[in-house]
Amino acid sequence: MAAQTVASTTNSVDLGPAAALSCRECGHRVPLGPVFACEECFGPLEIAYDFSAYDTEDLRKRIEAGPANIWRYAPLLPVPADVADKPNINPGWTQLVKADNLARELGVTGGLYIKDDSGNPTHSFKDRVVAQAIEAARAFNFTTLSCSSTGNLAGAVGAAAARAGFRSCVFIPHDLEQAKVVMAAVYGGELVGIEGNYDDVNRFCSELIGDPAGEGWGFVNVNLRPYYAEGSKTLAYEICEQLGWQLPDQLVVPIASGSQLTKIDKGLQELIKLGLVEDRPYKIFGAQAEGCSPVSVAYKAGHDVVRPQKPNTIAKSLAIGNPADGPYVLDIARRTGGAVEDVNDEQVVDAIKLLARTEGIFAETAGGVTVGVTRKLIENGVLDPTKTTVVLNTGDGLKTLDAVAGTGLTATIRPNLDSFREAGLA
Amino acid sequence: MAAQTVASTTNSVDLGPAAALSCRECGHRVPLGPVFACEECFGPLEIAYDFSAYDTEDLRKRIEAGPANIWRYAPLLPVPADVADKPNINPGWTQLVKADNLARELGVTGGLYIKDDSGNPTHSFKDRVVAQAIEAARAFNFTTLSCSSTGNLAGAVGAAAARAGFRSCVFIPHDLEQAKVVMAAVYGGELVGIEGNYDDVNRFCSELIGDPAGEGWGFVNVNLRPYYAEGSKTLAYEICEQLGWQLPDQLVVPIASGSQLTKIDKGLQELIKLGLVEDRPYKIFGAQAEGCSPVSVAYKAGHDVVRPQKPNTIAKSLAIGNPADGPYVLDIARRTGGAVEDVNDEQVVDAIKLLARTEGIFAETAGGVTVGVTRKLIENGVLDPTKTTVVLNTGDGLKTLDAVAGTGLTATIRPNLDSFREAGLA
Repeated sequence: MAAQTVASTTNSVDLGPAAALSCRECGHRVPLGPVFACEECFGPLEIAYDFSAYDTEDLRKRIEAGPANIWRYAPLLPVPADVADKPNINPGWTQLVKADNLARELGVTGGLYIKDDSGNPTHSFKDRVVAQAIEAARAFNFTTLSCSSTGNLAGAVGAAAARAGFRSCVFIPHDLEQAKVVMAAVYGGELVGIEGNYDDVNRFCSELIGDPAGEGWGFVNVNLRPYYAEGSKTLAYEICEQLGWQLPDQLVVPIASGSQLTKIDKGLQELIKLGLVEDRPYKIFGAQAEGCSPVSVAYKAGHDVVRPQKPNTIAKSLAIGNPADGPYVLDIARRTGGAVEDVNDEQVVDAIKLLARTEGIFAETAGGVTVGVTRKLIENGVLDPTKTTVVLNTGDGLKTLDAVAGTGLTATIRPNLDSFREAGLA
Repeated sequence: MAAQTVASTTNSVDLGPAAALSCRECGHRVPLGPVFACEECFGPLEIAYDFSAYDTEDLRKRIEAGPANIWRYAPLLPVPADVADKPNINPGWTQLVKADNLARELGVTGGLYIKDDSGNPTHSFKDRVVAQAIEAARAFNFTTLSCSSTGNLAGAVGAAAARAGFRSCVFIPHDLEQAKVVMAAVYGGELVGIEGNYDDVNRFCSELIGDPAGEGWGFVNVNLRPYYAEGSKTLAYEICEQLGWQLPDQLVVPIASGSQLTKIDKGLQELIKLGLVEDRPYKIFGAQAEGCSPVSVAYKAGHDVVRPQKPNTIAKSLAIGNPADGPYVLDIARRTGGAVEDVNDEQVVDAIKLLARTEGIFAETAGGVTVGVTRKLIENGVLDPTKTTVVLNTGDGLKTLDAVAGTGLTATIRPNLDSFREAGLA
């Protein structure tokens, strides 16, 4: 059925430079459509682009003259050329913060940067991927947007669907942080709690997609996944452009499904091939929480396959026990000379506080994971402190307040100087 | 003592085009310094600029080539020319969202825009004003930053102080929303709860500033207030630039102390005088919550003075019962042909949900106030729906979750299709 859908929509689909879908495993190509698995080998489908017409300097100028959001990179994304004129939440062009105070504490001398994606409209990197899925959903005439989510994605889908005029129905584990639940619900779509963890939610969505009840639904991270996933490339583009069109030496990226890390690598490779950055080695490091570390465990054991885990960590946005792109992450970490490491929940909280105290950035637990792993990798001599290093913060501390709930008032006083002095504050 | 401080620092102070401090009431001028009240008449001191050297088209080009934050307007702010190179949290250039869905619901045909300041680093407009205060604090050699705050400012000061390397000690009412308390505390500065409301906190800070215990402290909204307040001008600049260097016909602005509305008017007047926008009439409307509506009450009664109230509203970030700039707000609303209106807490919550459902923007209660007031002003025939209208959202819904706490899961199911169908979701 999927193949027929593709055949019937191909001629009318305008997704810019996206030329086809191509299997990451066997290279089999199919026309653009709402499909995600190869009909030959069941490998994941990715977007294949036609960038052949681009002149490097023209492209650079076009990007630099573009809007202060991800659509400045529209020529490199599966979106129509007039994407910026359509209703979307226009994420991206978030701050790349030169983290000199943190660098001093960690002993980094080669330049340390935080790519702070808490500045996106719903305050996580998920806005980047959902913005792509919205354009694909438009192209394939879906009217309902759906997803399985650990929380951030639910909010991003709810917000983007509202802006773009889609109905939404999203599925989350029933026990998420209150802030994420309210934020996902406030946009007025359906929000369904599933009794189980993220992997249960994900399996349920795969079932629903094959059922008549799910017909006409665009699941941003299932049948729209090839389009959706490309949004993470924009992190790579922005980091390089913000560094003055240069590759960083080292990147520290969180791992949930592994898709983000994989697509950041894809984005860097594209910039090299397009001549937008000079080709030189870079290392990608993956970061997990100890309570959900299937990729880190596989990396350290020297395995090529990832053995699923049952997650138990405060870093719920990374709590995917069976990460789809785990094997690709292992390959990229090894090929680039990076590594995969994990930190425990206490180290996550310490890292959140460290980043806040030094740089005034209040990160979600996922940001605590990347900063904590960066510190650990430096201490273990794995990450080179004399090299330019970019650490991703993919979410916002306001969504995981419980992690730092012990933080509060230093003192409570009456509104007079005597009380101020009594409290030892003078 | 204040005058001596000024005299001794004047020669070394470089705050760009800021030439002096000038009394808003009597025009008396004093050199730049950490003073806020006129020594002649006790009126508020404002920044007087020297913009005489600017050529309109050169200035426009310089701004457009600037960074995607408030420092693109450095030539119009009390900051040194190299401000963008100093550690600061670099707020601004937030989205001006064309709110077509909301416009349809409200019957606005002339173009409706939300200026969404939840995109700032600590997710409120306060980052704009604190960023100015940081540069003034540097110029006057303060090492501790302080403030009285209803919550948003506390977070903004905590974050900016951490980034810029200042110690911080901030004062808040002891019963604020948990999210605002945690966010203010996480940056590692001192956070002191005061048993009382914002007006009590503010009075206490004025006491502290005259006491030896407060010596060497920069209170961003007291002794640094003339510099701090200028940050709100950047909202006016951005709105006009984002509209293609045009004045909007109507603006709806929240009123807490009234400073923001006053400075937005100042910013618009500056753009007219500099020739950056065409001079034509605009109307400014002020928005308050019914439970703290001293300016709205005075406006409706035709008074020139504002009678203080004891605040009782969920819009805590606007809960200033004795607004310092109230009389100026009344003057601006009347002079421009605008108005001041208020909505009750239920209308605030309805408006938060309306904005979220139509535009995917999750606003703080203060945003519920401006959207709710916009709706009321249209219904009452006061705001013209055929004119271009800009409504400010100054904060983030994640900080006032309690307001929409009733919002949550639509259903909870087991991870299978039978349970999905039983819940009536198929």
